[in-house]
Amino acid sequence: MLEVITGFHAIEEALKNLALPDTAQCKLYITGKHKRHDIIAAIASEKKAGVIKIDQKEIDSLSDDIDNRGAVLIINAKKSSRIKHQSIKNFLEILNKDNSIVLLLDGITDPHNFGAILRSADQFAVDLVITPGKRSAGENSTVRKTSAGASEYVSVIEENLARSIDALKKNNFWVYGADMSGKPCMSQDLRGRIALILGSEGKGISKLLAEKCDGFIKIPAMGRVDSFNVSVACGILLYEIVRQQSAK
Amino acid sequence: MLEVITGFHAIEEALKNLALPDTAQCKLYITGKHKRHDIIAAIASEKKAGVIKIDQKEIDSLSDDIDNRGAVLIINAKKSSRIKHQSIKNFLEILNKDNSIVLLLDGITDPHNFGAILRSADQFAVDLVITPGKRSAGENSTVRKTSAGASEYVSVIEENLARSIDALKKNNFWVYGADMSGKPCMSQDLRGRIALILGSEGKGISKLLAEKCDGFIKIPAMGRVDSFNVSVACGILLYEIVRQQSAK
Repeated sequence: MLEVITGFHAIEEALKNLALPDTAQCKLYITGKHKRHDIIAAIASEKKAGVIKIDQKEIDSLSDDIDNRGAVLIINAKKSSRIKHQSIKNFLEILNKDNSIVLLLDGITDPHNFGAILRSADQFAVDLVITPGKRSAGENSTVRKTSAGASEYVSVIEENLARSIDALKKNNFWVYGADMSGKPCMSQDLRGRIALILGSEGKGISKLLAEKCDGFIKIPAMGRVDSFNVSVACGILLYEIVRQQSAK
Repeated sequence: MLEVITGFHAIEEALKNLALPDTAQCKLYITGKHKRHDIIAAIASEKKAGVIKIDQKEIDSLSDDIDNRGAVLIINAKKSSRIKHQSIKNFLEILNKDNSIVLLLDGITDPHNFGAILRSADQFAVDLVITPGKRSAGENSTVRKTSAGASEYVSVIEENLARSIDALKKNNFWVYGADMSGKPCMSQDLRGRIALILGSEGKGISKLLAEKCDGFIKIPAMGRVDSFNVSVACGILLYEIVRQQSAK
């Protein structure tokens, strides 16, 4: 999967946020006619990304953005590291695709569940995971272990969930809460930019956040015990979102 | 969901295996013309199930089985307890539906994962869970807790997995192993009688069992870390099976 990024600021942020050494899989194509081309070329070199000077016509062939200012960053998302976003602002500035998944975790404190959720977020290429609060060092260590390394790759940020929802909605995200009172997930159109809120097993989604949801989705089930393990529910809902977004 | 059971032996086994007190939701319809009607009526009364004498024409209207010998047991699976099967032999004797799910757990020892799997098995109405070995009392206590009560409702039996696969295949089950080398689960037809084998996270499915599989299925994913948490993978695959089996 290729990520194609244009705009000086977005390119700069994306390069800065590339966390791992395999940025050799990223290539910055520039005409070299602007002063800011030198700045982003320097950052790219520092990050060991390739810098290739080509003419404007070739740049135009690489991106749909007609206002590309002679610069395109291409990230081979399979081979290179995924971008590690530092804030919701930063994430939304860089975002330039029609399908996206953001996960908001409301009160999921158990580090085993959190680790299992990060593994699913990694597998389904979730763009951003937002949690409301800081974890202790001990919790972070358990998360790292139970996430089997996924915590190194997934963008996890700590931000106010209500404000995050507002920002996501302004950027054309549909916000769905996972709730057993909701619509069966396979009957809900989940293509496009989707933000999924998961609440804790006992309490569910807090009232303030529930009021901000565009809708609720559930996993149709027949069991007598009240619900799934929260990391299992998260995995199933992410699977359904990706299934719909990948369908031709 | 109504379960309709015919055949003296199958009715007797089903009645004996009804574990919970709400067997009042089960009704045994008999013509009362056979000696064995008295026997099953006695067992039904003992189990506090309803016993209703009607004529052969009415019996025929309740079941598709033209060889019903004047006896039909109807279990309201939503309201009454699910049948707790005691052995694979017992399960296969009673089984009389086209769609079925059996789960075989090969080497899944972690009681947290086992508990989360039982919750999903309960939610997706898995008919039978087969594990190879006995658990310690301590493990069973953790399973009960992490399964949030589901271990009380789901039929879990301990049997040799290889022999179980042979018996399932003889009864028109298709046996699929969960493996990342397999076919994407949404591209595989999973309607009918399906047995799903899950291996442990490190080792996968043992060679002996893998050789007995009709095929392998995987969850299509994009992550760098090798796989899902096993209970999450199980939940997603069960969801996909139920999604296909429920589709009209």
